[in-house]
Amino acid sequence: MGERQLLMIPGPTAVPQSILLAGARPMINHRGPEFKAALEACTEGLKRVFRTKDEIFILTASGTGGLEAAIVNFLSPGDHVLSVSIGVFGNRFASIASTYGAEVEKLDFEMGQAADPAKIKARLDADTGKEIKAVLVTHNETSTGVTNDLAAIGKVVREHGALLLVDGISSLVAIDFRMDEWGVDVMVAGSQKAFMVPPGLVFVAVSKRAAEAMKTAEMPRFYFDLQRARQYLEQGQTPWTPAVPQVLQLQAALQILEREGLDNCHARHARLAGAVRAGVKALGLKLLADESVASNAVTAVRVPEGVKVADLRGLMLDKYDVVLAGGQQSLKEKIFRIGHLGLVYETDIIACLGCLGLALKELGWDCDPGAGAAAAVQALRG
Amino acid sequence: MGERQLLMIPGPTAVPQSILLAGARPMINHRGPEFKAALEACTEGLKRVFRTKDEIFILTASGTGGLEAAIVNFLSPGDHVLSVSIGVFGNRFASIASTYGAEVEKLDFEMGQAADPAKIKARLDADTGKEIKAVLVTHNETSTGVTNDLAAIGKVVREHGALLLVDGISSLVAIDFRMDEWGVDVMVAGSQKAFMVPPGLVFVAVSKRAAEAMKTAEMPRFYFDLQRARQYLEQGQTPWTPAVPQVLQLQAALQILEREGLDNCHARHARLAGAVRAGVKALGLKLLADESVASNAVTAVRVPEGVKVADLRGLMLDKYDVVLAGGQQSLKEKIFRIGHLGLVYETDIIACLGCLGLALKELGWDCDPGAGAAAAVQALRG
Repeated sequence: MGERQLLMIPGPTAVPQSILLAGARPMINHRGPEFKAALEACTEGLKRVFRTKDEIFILTASGTGGLEAAIVNFLSPGDHVLSVSIGVFGNRFASIASTYGAEVEKLDFEMGQAADPAKIKARLDADTGKEIKAVLVTHNETSTGVTNDLAAIGKVVREHGALLLVDGISSLVAIDFRMDEWGVDVMVAGSQKAFMVPPGLVFVAVSKRAAEAMKTAEMPRFYFDLQRARQYLEQGQTPWTPAVPQVLQLQAALQILEREGLDNCHARHARLAGAVRAGVKALGLKLLADESVASNAVTAVRVPEGVKVADLRGLMLDKYDVVLAGGQQSLKEKIFRIGHLGLVYETDIIACLGCLGLALKELGWDCDPGAGAAAAVQALRG
Repeated sequence: MGERQLLMIPGPTAVPQSILLAGARPMINHRGPEFKAALEACTEGLKRVFRTKDEIFILTASGTGGLEAAIVNFLSPGDHVLSVSIGVFGNRFASIASTYGAEVEKLDFEMGQAADPAKIKARLDADTGKEIKAVLVTHNETSTGVTNDLAAIGKVVREHGALLLVDGISSLVAIDFRMDEWGVDVMVAGSQKAFMVPPGLVFVAVSKRAAEAMKTAEMPRFYFDLQRARQYLEQGQTPWTPAVPQVLQLQAALQILEREGLDNCHARHARLAGAVRAGVKALGLKLLADESVASNAVTAVRVPEGVKVADLRGLMLDKYDVVLAGGQQSLKEKIFRIGHLGLVYETDIIACLGCLGLALKELGWDCDPGAGAAAAVQALRG
C-alpha cells in the first residue's frame, strides 16, 4: 500500500520519530549559542562512541566526503599507500587516494572474505625502508557484509608505524570499535547508519599521530580542510554552514544511545544479525560471507538459482513494503543485502524473514516459507 | 524568553512549518523510486528557478562545497583565473582556486562597493592572448550586502570568451537571475538561503560551454566530481548518499515558490529590503552600501558611534529574541547585518526595526526608537 515501509537497507536507516522531530524544530543561527551547545555536546558524545580522547570533526557531507577528508588531510602526492580492500568501499577509498596523487598499492581480498592480518603484516614487515606512509582499510564492508578484524590489523600497522586510515562508515555503533586501544589514526563514520540520523553528516576522528601528519600533508583541500574545522570548533562552530537539523538530530540520537549503552547496542546488533543469518539459511539460501567474519550490520545473501535479484526486491517492495538492497558492481546480479543496523528490533527481523519466505516461494524457490521467521524466532531465544 | 526567535540573518533562514515537516517523514531508500521522483522534480524545478535549460546538480554540502565544485570541475592547475572580489565570499572563491593550483589574478573592489563591469571589460580587453580561462564573481556578496550587476558582467565576459563562474549562494530566489540569457557558465546556490530549506544542499548549474571544459579539466576531484553526479542523475540518483530530508524539503519549497511565482518573489524581496533600508536610515544609522547596489537579500548597517556590535546583537537576542548577524573579518566591529531573504514578511521587517530602535536607545544611541518601524511601514505603503 506504500504508506509505511520496513526499511532493511544498510543505510540510510530508519530514524526514530523523536529524532525526526528533533530536526523539525525552527531553524537556528549556526553561529549562535544554541548551535554551539549542540555541536559541543555532539563532539563529546561522539568521542565516547569512538572510544577516543582525541579530536573528532563533524562535516556536512556524505560518507564518501569523509573518506576524502581522511585522505587529503594526511597525505601528500606521491606518498606510498597500502590499500587493503575487500569490496566496493575499499576500492573507493583507494580510488580517492589515487585521484589525489598517492601511489596506491592494492592488497585485495576476494569479495565475501575478510582481510587477513597476517598478509598485511607480511607486506609491512617487508617494507623495511618504511616507504608505506599509510594503510587504508574498511572496518565493515557494506557491499559484502564482512567485518574486518580491526584490532588485529591495528596491531600490525602500529608495529610498522604507518598511519592507519579506516572507513568505519557503517560500523560505528553497530560493531565494537576502540579507536585509542586499537591504534587507529583516522576513523570515518556516517550519520545515516547505526546512529539513526538522516544522511548529511560524516564524522572524522583524528589521532595525535594523524594530527601531526596533517601539519605537513600537501594534498590540496579546502572544503574538507580539518585544520579549518579545528579552528572553528574551538569557537563551537563549523567553518561552513552545517546541516543544522542533522546536528540537532545527532545530539538527540547520542542521548538515546547513551541510555541503551554502547555494549548493549553492539550486543543487540549481534543478536539480531544472528537471527537474520539463521532465518536466511532456514529458507535454503546461502550467505556470501563465512559466519566467522559476517557483519552484524548487514547480511549479504546469494540469490538462489532461478530467482532474479530485481524480481525479489521488486516483489518485497511492491507487495510487502519491505525495502531490501541489491548487490553492487560485480555482485549486482548475485546477491541481495539485508540491512539490520540502527533502529532495528526483533519485530523487524521476524517480519522481514517471514515476507522473504513468502516472496521467494512466489518466485518459485522451493522452500517452507515460514521457516525463515521460525528460525529467527528460535535464534532470538538465545 | 527564548522559546521563539525572529531569525534575521543571511542564512540559514527560517523554514516554513510545512517544509520542516516534509523533512520529518520516515526515511526512504536513496536508490528507490520515491527518492528518484523527488530528485528529478527538484532538478527540473531548479532549472526554472535558475532560468536555464542546461544541467543542474544537487550536492550534499555547504555552499562552500559548491564553490569548490565550481572550481575543480572546470579548471586545471596553472590556469589563469581573474577573480573579481567585493568581499569575504569573493575572496573565498579565489582562495579555493589558488588552493587547487590556479594562477589567480585578483580584481578587488572596496568592501561595500559593487564590481565595475567597465573595469572587468578593460582587463579582459587587454587579454588579447586569451590567457584568462575563467572569471570568478559573486552575484550577491553576503558579507557587505552588495549585489553585482551580473547581466553586465556576463556581457563583457561573453565577449572575451572566458568561463564565467558565479557564486550565487545567497542570491537565487531573492534576486533576479537569468543563467542562459546572461551567459553564466557555472552558478552555485545554497538550500539554506531564499529557498527556505535547511542547510545541507548546494546546487551547481553548468552551461554547455562549462560541460565542454569539464571534459579536459585536470584539477583533482572525487566527492565533488560532477561527471559522476551526471552519470547517477541519469538513473535518478546521486553518487553518494544524499541529505534525503533536504531533498524532500526542496521539493516542497519549490512548489511553494512556483505558487508565489519567481517575479513576485523577487518583487517581495525588493519591497521588504527597501523597507529595511528606510527603517535603518530613520534610526539615524548609515548603510554600508550605496542604495543603487544594495542587496535585496541582506542589509549591512554601520554600527553607530558609541555602540558595540556585540552589545547590540546580544541585547537584540537576549531581550527581544531577534537574531542579527555581525560583520566578518575587517568589518567585524564596524557593521551588523540584517538578513531578509526567504520566509520573510512585512511583519518581520516592522517588528525587527521596532526592536532595533528599542535596543539602540537602550545602548545610548540618540534616536526616536519608533522611527525605524514607522519608516518601514511608510515604505511598505509603496
